[in-house]
Amino acid sequence: MKNKIEKASIINRLKIAEGHLKKVREMVEDKAYCIDVLHQSRAVQSALKEIDSLVLHNHLYTCVTQAIKKGQSKKVIDEILAVFNKSQK
Amino acid sequence: MKNKIEKASIINRLKIAEGHLKKVREMVEDKAYCIDVLHQSRAVQSALKEIDSLVLHNHLYTCVTQAIKKGQSKKVIDEILAVFNKSQK
Amino acid sequence: MKNKIEKASIINRLKIAEGHLKKVREMVEDKAYCIDVLHQSRAVQSALKEIDSLVLHNHLYTCVTQAIKKGQSKKVIDEILAVFNKSQK
Amino acid sequence: MKNKIEKASIINRLKIAEGHLKKVREMVEDKAYCIDVLHQSRAVQSALKEIDSLVLHNHLYTCVTQAIKKGQSKKVIDEILAVFNKSQK
Repeated sequence: MKNKIEKASIINRLKIAEGHLKKVREMVEDKAYCIDVLHQSRAVQSALKEIDSLVLHNHLYTCVTQAIKKGQSKKVIDEILAVFNKSQK
Repeated sequence: MKNKIEKASIINRLKIAEGHLKKVREMVEDKAYCIDVLHQSRAVQSALKEIDSLVLHNHLYTCVTQAIKKGQSKKVIDEILAVFNKSQK
Repeated sequence: MKNKIEKASIINRLKIAEGHLKKVREMVEDKAYCIDVLHQSRAVQSALKEIDSLVLHNHLYTCVTQAIKKGQSKKVIDEILAVFNKSQK
Repeated sequence: MKNKIEKASIINRLKIAEGHLKKVREMVEDKAYCIDVLHQSRAVQSALKEIDSLVLHNHLYTCVTQAIKKGQSKKVIDEILAVFNKSQK
């Protein structure tokens, strides 16, 4: 499927995020300046948001498209709205 | 369409949000305590997010469903992803 | 106080935001494309976040600084944390 | 300092978040349903936000309070505003 993001690419980004999250903990252990810890933690959260976007991209181009074409819109649309509402919180 | 939120209901919520936003300005004019101003402003933003969710709900159940059924997924999916990415920021 | 943002500037920004929020409602009334409504609504929310930042700026440079200097930190710090936690939601 | 959150408690929460983030990757590797991956990823982000709040709590009760008492407000206030502005994005 031409519009699909490779799973390997998403896994690779997740591994990088894991490394950065480990770094947050090490910074706290090493008594880094609080503001620096906060910026590092935010960087991890931003990376996860970008990964979420890739996952949602694939979901829309596969499951959602297929479900809607089969006339089974309700479940997939309600799931997207639930994700959207949480992303706003 | 049974899943569609009434336009009148969305407009009504927007009018209420306008009233609450006017209240934020009046609080600043009246030198209200900053923290109270911030909470009132946040309440307006939360109300707008709920309205966004209703608008997106209608969009998914109408334009998006129709476009995908016609095999015209790309534009609508990219628009949803753009909205989602912004909602995370 | 040299670091204080003028109240008139904050009020002016709030008036502009009110105009933009009215525009959101008019777009819904005029059956504008949902995605365009969402982007307009987001623009209002972004404007309000910038205003929140100005209000918090003044609060930190006035009330918070004074309270901490008087040794009355707890109330102001807890209020800031409450605002921060909400801003993340 | 009575209001300070224990460093060990923050480190412990970070370790739990690391475990949950590893779980997100395993879910992607195991081809879990996209929506489930998204909810797991959001749970990690929520946990990180709570940790941020604890770090900020300590920062306000220590560095910020001390700096303001010494009349050195500007640097710490500007740092808080920068964190606040990012948290809104």
